[in-house]
Amino acid sequence: MVKARAYAATSATSPLASTTIARRDPNEDDVQMEILFCGICHSDLHQVRNEWSGMMPTVYPCVPGHEIVGRVTKVGSAVKKFKVGDLAAVGCMVDSDGACPECKAGFEQFCPGLVLTYNFPDKHLGGVTYGGYSDSIVVKEQFVMRVPGNLDLAGAAPLLCAGITTYSPMRHWGVTKGKKVGVVGLGGLGHMAVKFAHALGAHTVVFTTTASKKDDALRLGADEVVLSKDANQMAKHAGSFDFILDSVSALHDINAYINLLARDGNLTMVGASPDPLPVAVFGLLFRRRSFSGSIIGGIAETQEMLDFCSQHNVTSDVEVIPIQKVNEAFERLMKSDVKYRFSIDMASLKSE
Amino acid sequence: MVKARAYAATSATSPLASTTIARRDPNEDDVQMEILFCGICHSDLHQVRNEWSGMMPTVYPCVPGHEIVGRVTKVGSAVKKFKVGDLAAVGCMVDSDGACPECKAGFEQFCPGLVLTYNFPDKHLGGVTYGGYSDSIVVKEQFVMRVPGNLDLAGAAPLLCAGITTYSPMRHWGVTKGKKVGVVGLGGLGHMAVKFAHALGAHTVVFTTTASKKDDALRLGADEVVLSKDANQMAKHAGSFDFILDSVSALHDINAYINLLARDGNLTMVGASPDPLPVAVFGLLFRRRSFSGSIIGGIAETQEMLDFCSQHNVTSDVEVIPIQKVNEAFERLMKSDVKYRFSIDMASLKSE
Repeated sequence: MVKARAYAATSATSPLASTTIARRDPNEDDVQMEILFCGICHSDLHQVRNEWSGMMPTVYPCVPGHEIVGRVTKVGSAVKKFKVGDLAAVGCMVDSDGACPECKAGFEQFCPGLVLTYNFPDKHLGGVTYGGYSDSIVVKEQFVMRVPGNLDLAGAAPLLCAGITTYSPMRHWGVTKGKKVGVVGLGGLGHMAVKFAHALGAHTVVFTTTASKKDDALRLGADEVVLSKDANQMAKHAGSFDFILDSVSALHDINAYINLLARDGNLTMVGASPDPLPVAVFGLLFRRRSFSGSIIGGIAETQEMLDFCSQHNVTSDVEVIPIQKVNEAFERLMKSDVKYRFSIDMASLKSE
Repeated sequence: MVKARAYAATSATSPLASTTIARRDPNEDDVQMEILFCGICHSDLHQVRNEWSGMMPTVYPCVPGHEIVGRVTKVGSAVKKFKVGDLAAVGCMVDSDGACPECKAGFEQFCPGLVLTYNFPDKHLGGVTYGGYSDSIVVKEQFVMRVPGNLDLAGAAPLLCAGITTYSPMRHWGVTKGKKVGVVGLGGLGHMAVKFAHALGAHTVVFTTTASKKDDALRLGADEVVLSKDANQMAKHAGSFDFILDSVSALHDINAYINLLARDGNLTMVGASPDPLPVAVFGLLFRRRSFSGSIIGGIAETQEMLDFCSQHNVTSDVEVIPIQKVNEAFERLMKSDVKYRFSIDMASLKSE
């Protein structure tokens, strides 16, 4: 076993604080890496504060973080794709059963034996898995992605969750040149959605409740910005969208957006409102529209996304922080006070 | 102009009664037909009673009926597909603009210039269009379908609405051999859905709240029947359906069915609940499920459906009534007291 430095919460109400955790010695199929950057995802905050107690109760100490970019420091004897010194990345998953139809079809995220990067039973060391708010991690090769060398590493970290979460449904629903795509909500997920829709060649429209976000939306790649509170602006777009990605994770009027879809248009939720969203059936009947959801993406598709980002020069807009500011960052995240993702520079952990 | 016998309502609270209406002389592109059978659709009742006053207020007198089967009695000089004596059918639509992208793509039902078979402005005679509770009708050739000779005509009439409404989404979402398909609600629409799912080769499961419907569901072609109130029975099917068609037009727990969908599974509503249906977002995120709607089908697809019915010997299970019993039938329809569709034998109108 190897000792690793990490930031952990010891209860739902404790701040994250410096600690030491164990990482396993790499098995023959494992990659050990030094973590360089780790993005802060809203899920980290939910998990640390045990806000998903019904579905996924938090085991303490909890080390969150599933947007991990680093450098390989050791590889097991059977590892083929990585060598010491390579850039590598880990996202939300670190293992799955590998045998079920979902795994075989490249949808590890739907595997019943899925192991998440943190707060999931750890079959190697017991206890639960520990995430990326740490100076190192050991992960099965199959769940480690290559990081193209031209990507800014701090901005690449959020691609592992915010990136794949928005890229995957766009690819699934056929976003491409000639399509009209809407993005609802301009936060960590939404800003990635704008970049991907634009890079995929679609006419990209951002919906926002905040007029002041317009310039930033255009800078990120939007062709148009619509104030969703303005009924006239909304009406002009009725029945015209091929695809809308909705990143809002609270109760909101989803029918206002469903009505903007063209025939066979799809609205995909990537935000997870805890309250059910009331859907007007007539809005679906006319034009044969559909309303769906999507969650991250499989390992192969995550690698495809990183390669796409390399080709199109896409990374997340990040505010880089030292890990000592993580609790402050959590508070700011609650107020959406970040453009658009925090990325922790893990070099800061060396000074602990 | 030609006088036609019909049954019409003169107000939202009047019973339907015998009357005389005008039909236009056939134009060069028109087909005139003697109506032999007309199905009774729940829409007829909604329209007659002005229950859609917000969306489509009823103009009186109102002659409903959009499940029409008859025999051609006269054709305009430009008509090519029909000759006098042919069997023919008319569904929910009698005209569209013919020029918009929807029409060009075969989706006349989504044309902004769509003309419905009844209660829509009639550009030929003024007033509104009159439906199939009548002894004749005149319709543009393009909106008239051929009726294969081997179909029972009384049972064929409901294919023009209940049939295409259930056939179209099954084709769109890829129902075929090897797929697992659910049908929610066993009424006029649901019983057609069971027949189509079975004829398309899918493993067909009927969900019902009424144990007594089991034998009938199996007779109609179901492979399994699940009591939707029985949580254990429902749990056995979790995550296993490729497609579910939901014909329930009232508020109900849609999430119980969404959770039964496999990865990329789709639930399509063909029933139109007036109340929004609350959708739990987590049920959509996991397995990338989708929830959608569908309404009738285009003209070419309606013809395809009739030809499919001819090949697979599919018609609606009907209770044939004389038109003099139409008000009684409306009352029974309100109580779902029909297996599974009323079909009016229009010969009864001759005795008026």
